[in-house]
Amino acid sequence: MKQLNKLIDHIVHRVNINLREPLVDVGPYVKGLLPKDSFAIYYAFYSLTSTHPLKFHFRHSSIGGTYFLGKCVVDHSILYKSDIRGDELKRKGHVVECNGHSIRLRDDEVIYIRDSFLLKTLVHNNSHDPENLEVFKISNTVSLHYANIHGTSVEGCFLEPFATVDLSICHDCAIGAYSYVQAGELSHKRILPGRIWVKASGAFEFNYQYPKEVLEQYIRMEDNKPVGILMDFFDERKEDFIPIYSAVNPDAMIDVPEGASVSPYAVIKGDCKVDKNVIVAQRAYLENSTLGPGSNAQENCYIINSTYDGYDVTAHGGKVIYSHLHKNCFVGFNSFLNGKKESQIEVGAGSIIMPHTIIDAAEPITIPENSLVWGFLSKQKDLELQSIPLADFAALKGQFRLGDMTFEGIGSKFVDGFAHRIEHILECNGAFWDGSEETAGHAQQTQDISFNILQPYPEGDLKGLYPELSIDPLEPSEL
Amino acid sequence: MKQLNKLIDHIVHRVNINLREPLVDVGPYVKGLLPKDSFAIYYAFYSLTSTHPLKFHFRHSSIGGTYFLGKCVVDHSILYKSDIRGDELKRKGHVVECNGHSIRLRDDEVIYIRDSFLLKTLVHNNSHDPENLEVFKISNTVSLHYANIHGTSVEGCFLEPFATVDLSICHDCAIGAYSYVQAGELSHKRILPGRIWVKASGAFEFNYQYPKEVLEQYIRMEDNKPVGILMDFFDERKEDFIPIYSAVNPDAMIDVPEGASVSPYAVIKGDCKVDKNVIVAQRAYLENSTLGPGSNAQENCYIINSTYDGYDVTAHGGKVIYSHLHKNCFVGFNSFLNGKKESQIEVGAGSIIMPHTIIDAAEPITIPENSLVWGFLSKQKDLELQSIPLADFAALKGQFRLGDMTFEGIGSKFVDGFAHRIEHILECNGAFWDGSEETAGHAQQTQDISFNILQPYPEGDLKGLYPELSIDPLEPSEL
Repeated sequence: MKQLNKLIDHIVHRVNINLREPLVDVGPYVKGLLPKDSFAIYYAFYSLTSTHPLKFHFRHSSIGGTYFLGKCVVDHSILYKSDIRGDELKRKGHVVECNGHSIRLRDDEVIYIRDSFLLKTLVHNNSHDPENLEVFKISNTVSLHYANIHGTSVEGCFLEPFATVDLSICHDCAIGAYSYVQAGELSHKRILPGRIWVKASGAFEFNYQYPKEVLEQYIRMEDNKPVGILMDFFDERKEDFIPIYSAVNPDAMIDVPEGASVSPYAVIKGDCKVDKNVIVAQRAYLENSTLGPGSNAQENCYIINSTYDGYDVTAHGGKVIYSHLHKNCFVGFNSFLNGKKESQIEVGAGSIIMPHTIIDAAEPITIPENSLVWGFLSKQKDLELQSIPLADFAALKGQFRLGDMTFEGIGSKFVDGFAHRIEHILECNGAFWDGSEETAGHAQQTQDISFNILQPYPEGDLKGLYPELSIDPLEPSEL
Repeated sequence: MKQLNKLIDHIVHRVNINLREPLVDVGPYVKGLLPKDSFAIYYAFYSLTSTHPLKFHFRHSSIGGTYFLGKCVVDHSILYKSDIRGDELKRKGHVVECNGHSIRLRDDEVIYIRDSFLLKTLVHNNSHDPENLEVFKISNTVSLHYANIHGTSVEGCFLEPFATVDLSICHDCAIGAYSYVQAGELSHKRILPGRIWVKASGAFEFNYQYPKEVLEQYIRMEDNKPVGILMDFFDERKEDFIPIYSAVNPDAMIDVPEGASVSPYAVIKGDCKVDKNVIVAQRAYLENSTLGPGSNAQENCYIINSTYDGYDVTAHGGKVIYSHLHKNCFVGFNSFLNGKKESQIEVGAGSIIMPHTIIDAAEPITIPENSLVWGFLSKQKDLELQSIPLADFAALKGQFRLGDMTFEGIGSKFVDGFAHRIEHILECNGAFWDGSEETAGHAQQTQDISFNILQPYPEGDLKGLYPELSIDPLEPSEL
């Protein structure tokens, strides 16, 4: 393990240099976080399809338990049980429009991770950094449990558990636990735990701050380790993944209709049904639930005793229990809809549950259709301060405050932006597939998939690290 | 599958050009041999240990079901359920003595396979071609079921099922089914099925020819497909391997004492025991059998209802059923000791069963200690013409004939050569391991092993082929 320990030290130094302002020492969060043997136990897997561009290079890295899809390069990094999902990377020739400039990509975009430590982190989408169009760059960064790095290039950052950076650019920032940031270009910022921040320059700014005492029940750091209800929720279910990861080609546990795809690396328990054009990603968890047509369950989603009527989106890390989603609902990143058998949650059609929303039902809760919901709720009455009809929100102009939420700017731009994004997600996932190539998306493109399973050095100085490995596309040859 | 079909055609043309003399068309043996889907079903596995030099590159190849260990390069080839076992490749700096010349290797030896189709073939040991010390070269070659390419560089060759080329150099040769060749440098030769030929220039020449009507019961080509008792034997047991190949890290099915190693990719059925310093390779099959200390079961060995007293060697492909091997016995490549419950086979201590020997017991058979046995036997009486005490054989000089066997030369060189080789095999396998590094061998070095599992393109034009992949050693870095 000698070389692995050196690599951990090396990454800590790199990140700390970046984070000298705001002053953060990531060492205590990383060192001793995992039993050292864990690095040598789990395998990594690289997905092979005939529809995604291939390229996978890594050197001097430990990548145990990590799933890779698309073009990825990993250098001097530790990726532990993470998901590097490059199925929406920009392609060569694609034209990006930004501030009146049109730039054509000269190469396919590549996810490039160096000098970083990502633990149970999701990396997805393409980068929204117009200065580096061909590279989705993650460097000198530590991110912890169930963080999401979504369309955001990060350099010199520290993401605490359940933090999400979305469609942004982050330099030298510390992002607190369960905070959600979608705020353009950020530099040398410290984001407090439980802040929900959505900002579009010149258009609007949305802010919500979780009350400290509420947030700490769900996620807090204790002796530099994450604890709380959210961590317990994952821990109680992690054994269910063991049989799946023990098989080379896990068996499908469910009937998969035409146009739908269910990852063999998803857990399917009890009586589950998926309809056409549904996508269930690796590391998703379905139990006694029904997903109507065009719905999806992304990485780290848990959908338990719930029903989706159709075209419902569960973004990465969404947890939905004893809930009924009518059509076209959106559940944002890392939201926790914790219904109970006797206190179920009903979400009306077209409603948007903002990222990082906690609905921990102490009584049955019904969300009217076409609502926007955010923050912390446990009773029906809490909707008064934590939700608003989308139409009303769209009418907002100027400054607005409701409970711990503030909004400034043009409401219609915020609502339209969300609606547009949800439509885009459904399209990308192939929710509207009608058999034609134009309407196909991830659900149809990930049906035929095989996996290269990669294991580390089992013993010695190099234990836990992986040999250098590269996978490149086979060029058809004119034999 | 378009590209795979092109590749098969390409290989056939290359081999046929080499085999224009002797005139052979390998096309009918290769085309349509396997259902095309088979190429896309099975995974390949590359073994990672801390004791074997690493290097694995392949391009434009299909390698389904194949096991790789050590330094291997594969280019424009199809390796199907083969074993490429490079654990005895020569290392950089090693000095080869030949005809009074001393040559120091400038690099580690690499197994280099190009433009070839190997089916269920074992490639092992280092090459014995003094002209290409750093490369164990296999090119423009087709080899079929259970062939062994052992320490032999082959260019432009066709090996029929169960053929073995051992410690030789073969250019443009066709090697018949179940023939065994250990004969130095061969060029443009056709070896008849069932010929056992061991020749050392200037020292001796051993020949045995199986009677055609006997051999054809065990292995013959019918409509260019292999059939017979030997094929049936494998077919009846192939299902037992399915659960093993379905697991990423198959569980050990047996207690493995210190210094011994049992591949997780071996089948262990019924009540089996292995003693210290035993090695059981991947694709070996053990059923209700006991292996005494220092014994081994190599690739494609089947040991069923049998007992080994200790230091017994079963070379690649040896099948031993209802037999009792006293100490220090040797069972050569692809031998078939087919004892029955009521007709068991007893092999006396120190006896040598020549490669490609068939003992199909119609009554109990007892082989005296220190015997040399060859050819076909079914009754005790058959030993008269198919065996001879090793001491008597060592005394031979000049010409000798017994039944279908002829020998010419110096018997002691033949016997000493065999004894020396068996001792070498035991040493390499670590049979004499006493806890010291000097006495360690494969059994001790393959205990800590992990596997990279490689899968092909699942669909489309490239289906059944693999993306380009390379694995290189991680260089420890001074971070």
